[in-house]
Amino acid sequence: MRAKQKTSPKTEKNRLKIRRLGIDTYHENVAYLHRECELYRAERFQALSKVEICANGNRILAVINVIDDSSIVTTNELGLSEEAFERLSVKEGQLVKVEHAEPPVSMDAVRRKISGERLGQEDFDIIVSDITQSRYSKTEISAFLVASGQTGMDRDEILYLTQSMLQSGEQLDWNEPLVVDKHCIGGIPGNRTSMLVVPIVAAHGMLIPKTSSRAITSPAGTSDTMEVLANVKLEIEELHNIVSKHRGCLAWGGTANLSPVDDILISVERPLGIDSKGQMVASILSKKLAAGSTHLLIDIPVGATAKVRSMREALHLRKLFEFVGDQLNIHLEVIITDGRQPVGRGIGPVLEARDVMQVLQNDPLAPYDLRQKSLRLAGRVLEFDPDVRGGYGYSIARDILDSGRALHKMNEIIDAQGAQTTKYSPASLTCEITAPKKGVVTAIDNLQMAHIASFAGAPMSKGSGVDLLKKVGDSVQRNEPLYRIHAEFLSDYMFAQNLCERDNGYTIGKPEDISKAFVEF
Amino acid sequence: MRAKQKTSPKTEKNRLKIRRLGIDTYHENVAYLHRECELYRAERFQALSKVEICANGNRILAVINVIDDSSIVTTNELGLSEEAFERLSVKEGQLVKVEHAEPPVSMDAVRRKISGERLGQEDFDIIVSDITQSRYSKTEISAFLVASGQTGMDRDEILYLTQSMLQSGEQLDWNEPLVVDKHCIGGIPGNRTSMLVVPIVAAHGMLIPKTSSRAITSPAGTSDTMEVLANVKLEIEELHNIVSKHRGCLAWGGTANLSPVDDILISVERPLGIDSKGQMVASILSKKLAAGSTHLLIDIPVGATAKVRSMREALHLRKLFEFVGDQLNIHLEVIITDGRQPVGRGIGPVLEARDVMQVLQNDPLAPYDLRQKSLRLAGRVLEFDPDVRGGYGYSIARDILDSGRALHKMNEIIDAQGAQTTKYSPASLTCEITAPKKGVVTAIDNLQMAHIASFAGAPMSKGSGVDLLKKVGDSVQRNEPLYRIHAEFLSDYMFAQNLCERDNGYTIGKPEDISKAFVEF
Repeated sequence: MRAKQKTSPKTEKNRLKIRRLGIDTYHENVAYLHRECELYRAERFQALSKVEICANGNRILAVINVIDDSSIVTTNELGLSEEAFERLSVKEGQLVKVEHAEPPVSMDAVRRKISGERLGQEDFDIIVSDITQSRYSKTEISAFLVASGQTGMDRDEILYLTQSMLQSGEQLDWNEPLVVDKHCIGGIPGNRTSMLVVPIVAAHGMLIPKTSSRAITSPAGTSDTMEVLANVKLEIEELHNIVSKHRGCLAWGGTANLSPVDDILISVERPLGIDSKGQMVASILSKKLAAGSTHLLIDIPVGATAKVRSMREALHLRKLFEFVGDQLNIHLEVIITDGRQPVGRGIGPVLEARDVMQVLQNDPLAPYDLRQKSLRLAGRVLEFDPDVRGGYGYSIARDILDSGRALHKMNEIIDAQGAQTTKYSPASLTCEITAPKKGVVTAIDNLQMAHIASFAGAPMSKGSGVDLLKKVGDSVQRNEPLYRIHAEFLSDYMFAQNLCERDNGYTIGKPEDISKAFVEF
Repeated sequence: MRAKQKTSPKTEKNRLKIRRLGIDTYHENVAYLHRECELYRAERFQALSKVEICANGNRILAVINVIDDSSIVTTNELGLSEEAFERLSVKEGQLVKVEHAEPPVSMDAVRRKISGERLGQEDFDIIVSDITQSRYSKTEISAFLVASGQTGMDRDEILYLTQSMLQSGEQLDWNEPLVVDKHCIGGIPGNRTSMLVVPIVAAHGMLIPKTSSRAITSPAGTSDTMEVLANVKLEIEELHNIVSKHRGCLAWGGTANLSPVDDILISVERPLGIDSKGQMVASILSKKLAAGSTHLLIDIPVGATAKVRSMREALHLRKLFEFVGDQLNIHLEVIITDGRQPVGRGIGPVLEARDVMQVLQNDPLAPYDLRQKSLRLAGRVLEFDPDVRGGYGYSIARDILDSGRALHKMNEIIDAQGAQTTKYSPASLTCEITAPKKGVVTAIDNLQMAHIASFAGAPMSKGSGVDLLKKVGDSVQRNEPLYRIHAEFLSDYMFAQNLCERDNGYTIGKPEDISKAFVEF
């Protein structure tokens, strides 16, 4: 120990002053070092890519950007991006040391994965732990995602990854034998069934503490839509109080810190456009297990523009879910649904919340497909109740909805979470996209409609998105409106319109061109 | 056209003002947008990762960082990193539009590669072209590297990648039937044989226009070492003049823009610590072909701490080189050499240049292994000459070296390129690392010695590095010096010393522990 101290004297002379820079580098620690830095030669660090920064016993890894402008950092300062500054948790002006950083230890395992090896539980544990602690750069995360992607993980490895992700965050415990949940693998715009399943199931008396995510690149997540009606940011204690009183909630999962590594992985995976089924299974099941679910219904929509495009693929994915779920002792059922087009009419938080409330209010204008799908899902969840006879779930769900008890429960939940004081309405810049010819709507592209709604500003601008006026099977005249774009900001309005000009997402043809629905299970 | 203009009016109101930021983001375009930007919502772009920036008909893709500090960029400005600013080639204050960017088209091919498909020539062509034009983010490059890594490319794909890389840059043409070159795959510190082979071969009259790279994470490249003696930055025309007059040169390849994609790939690959043999073959052969070589000798050192660790691996790599070389019509020979320890004594530009000059001057202190290896390589290159009888190359090379003709040629080349006016000497902060016990040096870790020399500051600080005082087979007493560290900067000195404390790179044992050299071919 003494020898070590002798060779690295801890004087102030070999330290840099921390400066917080107002730069948000989105899930990556970046440190900014002046090219003429008096202590370290910045370019050396840049070529070697990462440095370790030490202060007050905290250590972070960061990527180096070299600065040529002393107004950003001076030659005896070290700038930190907002995230890196938070993570190091020091004060501005604090003196720090910079060290050469080796790649995180677990990159060895990633390299083994790249060369085709099978990894074990310990490998996944340290990879997930390093990523959770922001020790990976985005290029390293990308390497891990690709190496463990599509063809790279067998089902045992998916199980290991799930367990590692589960361990990486908090876990909720509801102290009840039956804690139910439902989850859709995503990819279908407007598919807000959770906001109907939760009040129906909770009205029946089952415990359904639903936590969900916000949209990242899709036009709305359940949290974004629920937020139109109520506060969704709940502390764990509030969550417990609400759920124990009302048997359900619709809260944002972020505060609960469940499987935090997931958000980091997604922030790299989405822009790359890669979508590994193994990672999807690990991501979903780790979050649901962390949320304390004992019984889970998974919805896999199948369709030409859905995440899963064939029945064969859906069955393969179902078996992956079943395998991992069984090993981790969660009662899991999978339902395969029609994913040929968006569900309901609205795409975007306000428009989707409107659809949901119409269904709850038994409004004759309520979108029929959203009602039907939600009842079927709720029915299946109700059958997790030992007292519900097999096959009777659907009619119980329908009774709860038709009687207004679901609406009543939803209002209870909204009040408990805190009703939204802002009154949102659909955004005011609108334009209608019309049919280029007469015919029948034979297909609506889920991906393209999600894209258009995103470009229009959803979900950050709550009132923005797309309102579908025609669905598959509807007849249209030439120049009849197919859907309406809502946008709040002019730039978004332009982006969405330009996108529609390239591809409006609708196919008009003859009735016989409509693809058959896949059989639902 | 009119309709399009109507929906995106090109007024100044929807443009941002370009501001050049003094931030060097190292081979990645980064754009900085204020969180409260008046025109665009920065966070939307961030989640979607990339934007396209258009001005004067130029278009670049850039990753968005969100800014919370108006002194960096204001709400109606768009900041650009140095590289992005160069690439867009506009003036500061220029008004630009920002668009949502799709991932580069060729990412489709990368995704197909990830899912296990075999790619064709056109796929590699657009991937390489997109990367060359800085359209890839580092995460995308990482995805490509991993997907096409170790187990991911068959030899036809390696051929395609080589051709794409070759096409991506300039190509030199020497208008001679016999243009020779030699290249080592790297990984052995101190291995500066090119600086001996070139003067020997050129003195014989063969054309050997050697262009080499600078070190990125290794302690010295041939260019870094040659730069101790002479200018290495030569314009293409100068290069041609020197070579036509002196038959050889030792220049930096950077100005010639040969296979420019290679540097970008390496900037991501090195920090990841992945090392794909397929990419190595494509990288080396594309550069050599672009440099106009007709005959090429490849040196593959084999050793426990070399890049290639077994004879089986070396043979596999040799066959890859032969396959691609034959298809691309270059006469290629592979020599497998002893890679059990560093070559020569010095590691770092000044120390290596000293070794080279000692050999050229026939100094009795010259490192014998460097002399012998260089003569063997030069001999093989000389045998590319149809007039040299098979097996006689070595003795011709030795005659040229012993007679002083090689030294004379080297001095001609140095003068032609421009002798270095700065007189470099070994860096002045030194310390000796001593043997912890008596015995025989049984192994020297190439990787660790390279690491120590890098940490000491090589190659950017020319006089820094490591000077080996003992080599494998030498007897040592306890506390006898094994090597000397030279550093110029105190921080580097500390870094190198700390690294030695963890692992000094030497193994001391009994003579029988020395591993046998692999047979050389």
